[in-house]
Amino acid sequence: MTLMTREEYIESLRAMNKRVFIMGQKVDNPVDHPLVRPSLNACAMTYELAQMAEHADLARATSNLTGQPVNRFTHLHQDRSDLVAKVKMQRTLGQMTGCCFQRCVGMDALNALDSVTYEMDEALGTGYHAAFRRYLQNVQEHDLVADGAMTDPKGDRRLRPSQQTDPDLFVRIVDRKADGIVVRGAKLHQTGALNAHEIIVMPTLTLSEDDRDYAVAFAVPADAPGIVMIYGRQPSDTRKLENSEIDVGNRQFGGHEAVIVLDDLFVPWERVFMAGEVAFSGLLVERFAGYHRQSYGGCKVGVGDVLIGAAQALARYQGTDRASHIRDKIVEMVHLNETLYACGIACSAEGRPTPSGTYLIDLLLANVCKLNVTRFPYEIARLAQDIAGGLLVTMPSEKDLAHPEVGPYLEKYLRSAERYTTEDRCRMLRLVENLTLGPGAAAYLTESMHGAGSPQAQRIMLARLADLEEKVRFARKLAGINEHDLEG
Amino acid sequence: MTLMTREEYIESLRAMNKRVFIMGQKVDNPVDHPLVRPSLNACAMTYELAQMAEHADLARATSNLTGQPVNRFTHLHQDRSDLVAKVKMQRTLGQMTGCCFQRCVGMDALNALDSVTYEMDEALGTGYHAAFRRYLQNVQEHDLVADGAMTDPKGDRRLRPSQQTDPDLFVRIVDRKADGIVVRGAKLHQTGALNAHEIIVMPTLTLSEDDRDYAVAFAVPADAPGIVMIYGRQPSDTRKLENSEIDVGNRQFGGHEAVIVLDDLFVPWERVFMAGEVAFSGLLVERFAGYHRQSYGGCKVGVGDVLIGAAQALARYQGTDRASHIRDKIVEMVHLNETLYACGIACSAEGRPTPSGTYLIDLLLANVCKLNVTRFPYEIARLAQDIAGGLLVTMPSEKDLAHPEVGPYLEKYLRSAERYTTEDRCRMLRLVENLTLGPGAAAYLTESMHGAGSPQAQRIMLARLADLEEKVRFARKLAGINEHDLEG
Amino acid sequence: MTLMTREEYIESLRAMNKRVFIMGQKVDNPVDHPLVRPSLNACAMTYELAQMAEHADLARATSNLTGQPVNRFTHLHQDRSDLVAKVKMQRTLGQMTGCCFQRCVGMDALNALDSVTYEMDEALGTGYHAAFRRYLQNVQEHDLVADGAMTDPKGDRRLRPSQQTDPDLFVRIVDRKADGIVVRGAKLHQTGALNAHEIIVMPTLTLSEDDRDYAVAFAVPADAPGIVMIYGRQPSDTRKLENSEIDVGNRQFGGHEAVIVLDDLFVPWERVFMAGEVAFSGLLVERFAGYHRQSYGGCKVGVGDVLIGAAQALARYQGTDRASHIRDKIVEMVHLNETLYACGIACSAEGRPTPSGTYLIDLLLANVCKLNVTRFPYEIARLAQDIAGGLLVTMPSEKDLAHPEVGPYLEKYLRSAERYTTEDRCRMLRLVENLTLGPGAAAYLTESMHGAGSPQAQRIMLARLADLEEKVRFARKLAGINEHDLEG
Amino acid sequence: MTLMTREEYIESLRAMNKRVFIMGQKVDNPVDHPLVRPSLNACAMTYELAQMAEHADLARATSNLTGQPVNRFTHLHQDRSDLVAKVKMQRTLGQMTGCCFQRCVGMDALNALDSVTYEMDEALGTGYHAAFRRYLQNVQEHDLVADGAMTDPKGDRRLRPSQQTDPDLFVRIVDRKADGIVVRGAKLHQTGALNAHEIIVMPTLTLSEDDRDYAVAFAVPADAPGIVMIYGRQPSDTRKLENSEIDVGNRQFGGHEAVIVLDDLFVPWERVFMAGEVAFSGLLVERFAGYHRQSYGGCKVGVGDVLIGAAQALARYQGTDRASHIRDKIVEMVHLNETLYACGIACSAEGRPTPSGTYLIDLLLANVCKLNVTRFPYEIARLAQDIAGGLLVTMPSEKDLAHPEVGPYLEKYLRSAERYTTEDRCRMLRLVENLTLGPGAAAYLTESMHGAGSPQAQRIMLARLADLEEKVRFARKLAGINEHDLEG
Repeated sequence: MTLMTREEYIESLRAMNKRVFIMGQKVDNPVDHPLVRPSLNACAMTYELAQMAEHADLARATSNLTGQPVNRFTHLHQDRSDLVAKVKMQRTLGQMTGCCFQRCVGMDALNALDSVTYEMDEALGTGYHAAFRRYLQNVQEHDLVADGAMTDPKGDRRLRPSQQTDPDLFVRIVDRKADGIVVRGAKLHQTGALNAHEIIVMPTLTLSEDDRDYAVAFAVPADAPGIVMIYGRQPSDTRKLENSEIDVGNRQFGGHEAVIVLDDLFVPWERVFMAGEVAFSGLLVERFAGYHRQSYGGCKVGVGDVLIGAAQALARYQGTDRASHIRDKIVEMVHLNETLYACGIACSAEGRPTPSGTYLIDLLLANVCKLNVTRFPYEIARLAQDIAGGLLVTMPSEKDLAHPEVGPYLEKYLRSAERYTTEDRCRMLRLVENLTLGPGAAAYLTESMHGAGSPQAQRIMLARLADLEEKVRFARKLAGINEHDLEG
Repeated sequence: MTLMTREEYIESLRAMNKRVFIMGQKVDNPVDHPLVRPSLNACAMTYELAQMAEHADLARATSNLTGQPVNRFTHLHQDRSDLVAKVKMQRTLGQMTGCCFQRCVGMDALNALDSVTYEMDEALGTGYHAAFRRYLQNVQEHDLVADGAMTDPKGDRRLRPSQQTDPDLFVRIVDRKADGIVVRGAKLHQTGALNAHEIIVMPTLTLSEDDRDYAVAFAVPADAPGIVMIYGRQPSDTRKLENSEIDVGNRQFGGHEAVIVLDDLFVPWERVFMAGEVAFSGLLVERFAGYHRQSYGGCKVGVGDVLIGAAQALARYQGTDRASHIRDKIVEMVHLNETLYACGIACSAEGRPTPSGTYLIDLLLANVCKLNVTRFPYEIARLAQDIAGGLLVTMPSEKDLAHPEVGPYLEKYLRSAERYTTEDRCRMLRLVENLTLGPGAAAYLTESMHGAGSPQAQRIMLARLADLEEKVRFARKLAGINEHDLEG
Repeated sequence: MTLMTREEYIESLRAMNKRVFIMGQKVDNPVDHPLVRPSLNACAMTYELAQMAEHADLARATSNLTGQPVNRFTHLHQDRSDLVAKVKMQRTLGQMTGCCFQRCVGMDALNALDSVTYEMDEALGTGYHAAFRRYLQNVQEHDLVADGAMTDPKGDRRLRPSQQTDPDLFVRIVDRKADGIVVRGAKLHQTGALNAHEIIVMPTLTLSEDDRDYAVAFAVPADAPGIVMIYGRQPSDTRKLENSEIDVGNRQFGGHEAVIVLDDLFVPWERVFMAGEVAFSGLLVERFAGYHRQSYGGCKVGVGDVLIGAAQALARYQGTDRASHIRDKIVEMVHLNETLYACGIACSAEGRPTPSGTYLIDLLLANVCKLNVTRFPYEIARLAQDIAGGLLVTMPSEKDLAHPEVGPYLEKYLRSAERYTTEDRCRMLRLVENLTLGPGAAAYLTESMHGAGSPQAQRIMLARLADLEEKVRFARKLAGINEHDLEG
Repeated sequence: MTLMTREEYIESLRAMNKRVFIMGQKVDNPVDHPLVRPSLNACAMTYELAQMAEHADLARATSNLTGQPVNRFTHLHQDRSDLVAKVKMQRTLGQMTGCCFQRCVGMDALNALDSVTYEMDEALGTGYHAAFRRYLQNVQEHDLVADGAMTDPKGDRRLRPSQQTDPDLFVRIVDRKADGIVVRGAKLHQTGALNAHEIIVMPTLTLSEDDRDYAVAFAVPADAPGIVMIYGRQPSDTRKLENSEIDVGNRQFGGHEAVIVLDDLFVPWERVFMAGEVAFSGLLVERFAGYHRQSYGGCKVGVGDVLIGAAQALARYQGTDRASHIRDKIVEMVHLNETLYACGIACSAEGRPTPSGTYLIDLLLANVCKLNVTRFPYEIARLAQDIAGGLLVTMPSEKDLAHPEVGPYLEKYLRSAERYTTEDRCRMLRLVENLTLGPGAAAYLTESMHGAGSPQAQRIMLARLADLEEKVRFARKLAGINEHDLEG
């Protein structure tokens, strides 16, 4: 059976031997670490969803490689409905977890590599595509979580990789051997790396001939020798260590990011998908980023649904849900959230096949989607804070709520509309805090800004993809201006 | 042949006998009136497009009634691809005309009436649907332009139709006869009415039992006795009377609106599609408005393309197109415009069949689409004015440009980057003026605000269609709050 | 007496002999031309205000040159309260006229020239200041309207003045004689030029040594030989020719702009205030622009008051003024408008004396003021259109209202809440049209964008004036980072 | 001497005997608690500033009661320059601390009580003003920190105080005795309460006759029997317990809020300033809120300066500070921040004396100020996150940086432009995290939203204070509409 259960997934992780550091300590079994467990729960929901009959159309697909049912997170998109189903699955998981469930980056990397290796082989006569498809079949058959690793440290942003004082600030090939390559460098912002089976490394920008050694893509098991993972801090992260029921906001789910160091990591050739083909580095970045910009039109919308629901619940608790200005703010939150969803759906519904047969979203609309994601969640969060009230950041600890001396005071004075309990109100406030100022905000806000590329990256793509010449022609024709050869 | 040529269309209008008033004068042949002709040209483009082989997939469809090719503007949407093609056709026509081409309202009215009459007959045992389909077949076979007439004068907005001092402020049945009904009232904001063959009247809001006589829908020829049309003024409208080449901005195309008075108009029963069924008035409004809110995700995007093109052209003329702040503004315009398009596509791609078989867009997303249309064109226009410069509103008349004494001064001093002529620059400035402050702005801005319902109408729909209870459940679950029966 | 009456002002204009072209025709007496008269009325309000006892504190001041009462438009600001009074006077005039009253540019030019000539003389040993003060005393004593002429045609924006193919695209000295200089060039966007007694010419940008001949400032009578004025078109301008009562929107008041050509104009030395001192060209631009950016925090706020009042009136007519969403939009309009006012007041209240004794506004805050003016009026106008409804651009002509056949229809169907007349509603709609899409929009929107410099000009000033180093030091100190010498 | 040093201030707090609970524990000496100490440091800066000669004009004033120099935080504003100096002092302290320094609420309460008690005595013949002035003289002479306590728990927002199920949800008089009153209730969101000498209680809304017992204002020592303080949690608060150098972001300064319970607290009459005078409850709320809405135009601007500085520093570290899009974002941050400052200055410069002689800000502009504060800091924070990059929420702990095994990896890979150290970059990132997602965000964002009243409170004031009738009259006059008696 190609679909793992939650338990099998956790066991498979436990069987790995990753080199992980968390807040200054080496951690042998990150699966059980309280800072990691919520993120594991979120990633595990990608397995649970595929087990639920009512979500089977979203969470499962039929492999074009094997004809077997596979988890959609390992699937190559075969048509527009696959692209649309991806977005809907992501929204559903966002609604269920209220956080980043971490498995999209790998899915997007797999789909991008499929078409790019195919076209690269066609153009250059290389043989990466077949190797990639063999690798992918293995991922599908074992229902693996892949971490897609793109962002290099970059050092001084004004300099190209080979111009940096330290040549390792972008991942590069330091040795080429008969049986494989040796790479060195690091990847930042590795979402869910501690919960992954595989790491798929890709270059982070379009490269020129001088940067040949940086044009490298490959996959390795996440516990391969040479890989070190260092956990990244999130706002209010240590509330997860307080054995908290309430103050953590979202007790069951969360996310995490890590720095991954590749310290002279060996990669056998059958797992190498690019090694020096600079001409295709840009295409790989563009495809991967395109898929991932689509993704945000699903997952962040799901988290947005949670935040809207929390704001609506708080308005009821506080007796303000019928006030016209509150209703208006809720409508505005819905409007912004659904605009993001519309962008996610539109770039999917306008998808087109690539030469390998794998479907690609409409790139212009996917970039439009992500650029809106860098804005609207911030406004949704601001409106949620408006509705929630100042108690969001002035509420005492749950230990005070439970304290024999001051607990009754808080029970009495933090009570709002009678039919709701004080504890329910406090729980909901902490959920809004989590999503707008806590660990959830790392995913819902900052990651919305920078994940899949910062806003300027989308703007550059829009400038490239918008056909300005055609628009100028429309305008000229209506203005009655003859067509001279005046372009550019 | 069911597809008319431009010439046949104009002749067919000339054969009609409408009662039309323009700026205080009765006009016998509005087709040739210089205030009307640009709007006729725009509407005629819906015929020309269907004659162009390269646009046949957008502009033509196969009738589900007859199996014959028909103009898409008379077609019932048979699947999602029809809904998507509609939006693309509208964008294309917006690009070609830079204005409102006026035929969408009728298309949206026809599609709305089809499903509503079907469901009304099912529920109430009435017989409207068959009559409607017979009517529609005639529209298709003669390739007619239908004006969809919804907005009543409304009088005092706080009062329902039957509460108004003057009972005629909403169109109503004043007499029911054996062979038909007699109606009285008026419809405002009738886009392109002077260019239409048919007027399709619908109620403007959800009605209660007290307002039975106001629940009326029907179709009549646009020159039926009892119909009076009064042309509405637009900004800078009389530049069309100046025999202007440049100052009018968009010499060939434009739009118009009219007040239509129905002065005890007789409608035979075979053209009546609702007469007293208040329970279905709201559904008809909602369906029509939904389709029309989708439409704006196409047509206004096309006009936006023209405006972006004009701004880009002006930046080139002025030598500023490579300035980073100008490029950034162009990108922002593209981003906003494509966000509107994404909404238009998304509500189409998520369409679903109604019981009559005719496809309906996703209503939530169509309302999201329109609500964005009430905002983004204004910002696009603001950015276009930023790029265009103040000359937009300080440039002398084309008569000065042509004047022997001052023309050479203007030729010299309004010249910008050398490879472009002064006249080209002036023409492009006038196009931007047309679209942001002139007759084009009536369509691109004010109509974007109020067409298919003012923003508050969309907000009310969002409040109704957003499933807030589901969102509250997501939040509650993550906050660890037990499900009491606490809703609403 | 140094304060002219309205009648004296008009007579004084009539006595002049300007060379004026309007829409292709030479006009001998522009004062009486129906396209010009509304703008004359607006400018004349600056005289009428000074005659009103209740506004004397705003509209009059005591000359520091003569100790006589003068119109504030000819006054040098002597302290912060003068700067504040200027803004309040401008708001009042905006409220009274609903348009641009045209006399601010001259006031701002006079104040800028005063301090710059003083500092230039101090630095370079030139003798401009005394000449300027003599000139100013004459302006005060005769209560003259001065047009401040800054914006050159600029040609290709990438090129400096002396690099342009045509060297005349910036005003320049073409000859230096014993008794004066000869200048050639043109100035665009000359607000109210036809209503001015004097033209004060200044350079438009910071100049380098190569552009010495372009560093020129001077004053000439507006009918000096060599000056040609060409009237600029505005949206819906010709409604002023229709003998319209209603359709023109603002029957009494308006504005105008003109292109001014300086065709080998001779200027005697006593009227020259800069001739080659490139080092002070930038300071003059900065000071003038600073004062004029302050001005917009007054005049546009006054026009905003009119537009808010019109929207509120329409809401009442239509029976929507108590709807929560309408009230909310009115509040938003007020909020944005008062934010502009706050900026106008703040830069005045933080003013400081220059070496000549004349007070200068806080330049940073004045630029902040203007940058907000490039945004908020557009949003206020959008909200006004939202409240006004679509009738704004679909309402028939006043000739239809008066027509015996269709007038009664319109009277009946355009009536709204009972206590208001149809005509009142139509008048108010036309006022909103005037301000948001008509001639008033040229001033309220496009001029808000570009007057006193386009938004990018303000952004460049903000980048220069904001003390980023100090902000970095605050941040470093709090972050616990030692002060290395790391700046810039 | 009336000006305490930092050390004297801390000693004076240590001498108090407050009943304080922090995260479930009773804390005997909160002054030394690591969660409180940063907030104490911030409040102490109000003493330090008054000791600095270069800031004496801002931080000190001459008492109108005693003629002695006093800290401005205890001063009654005697003229407009006092009001302006207040805002400048607040900006300076915001720049120095990067957080809330907590002493403004008391200052604003003192000024509000002064004029309201005066006018209440005049109207009702009560004798509160003299008592208040005696109390204030004591505050000035001992240079005390007063906590202004306004916000009640409010329970169900739809119900007035006396309608709540629990009558204690607003502070109320439960007993009136010969020597004083007994009060019961709680106050939420008490900024800096643990650092205060005095608590000044005021009602939270306009009250009606039914709510007489809720119209109560008084002052008590912060350690009076019956007062319990419960510390409120902030995002990432426990980083202060980690003995962190870097991860806490702003090691030296912070803020805090507390719930204050008044458990049958006795207040002697000489400290009571309102007891049942419902007619003046609204005026007190309005005055206090007005002053405090002004305050935000100073303090938040200072914190904004820090955040802009941090963003600019990070851009340099990362080599992006010369990129045009980064410069543009910095300019936008400056623009928004200075717009807030302009509002703070404007409402001060337009201040007017109240009957007691104490100056009051312009209330309309103060509300405009605060309404902007509920928006712009969120956008400034969003832009700061854009510039900072994703590392903001993915950076490992400082313990990893110091770890012998992984520290060198981080040192190598988190290095950016060569002249800056990795540690400096990490410190600056943590400062931005602190201000946008950490404890600083509680003050810079959520408090900007809700402090001094949530945005809807400002909107209600704007609706009340804007003279809409006058604006309608301006519009009517320009539209040529006769003055009927049609208002309201």
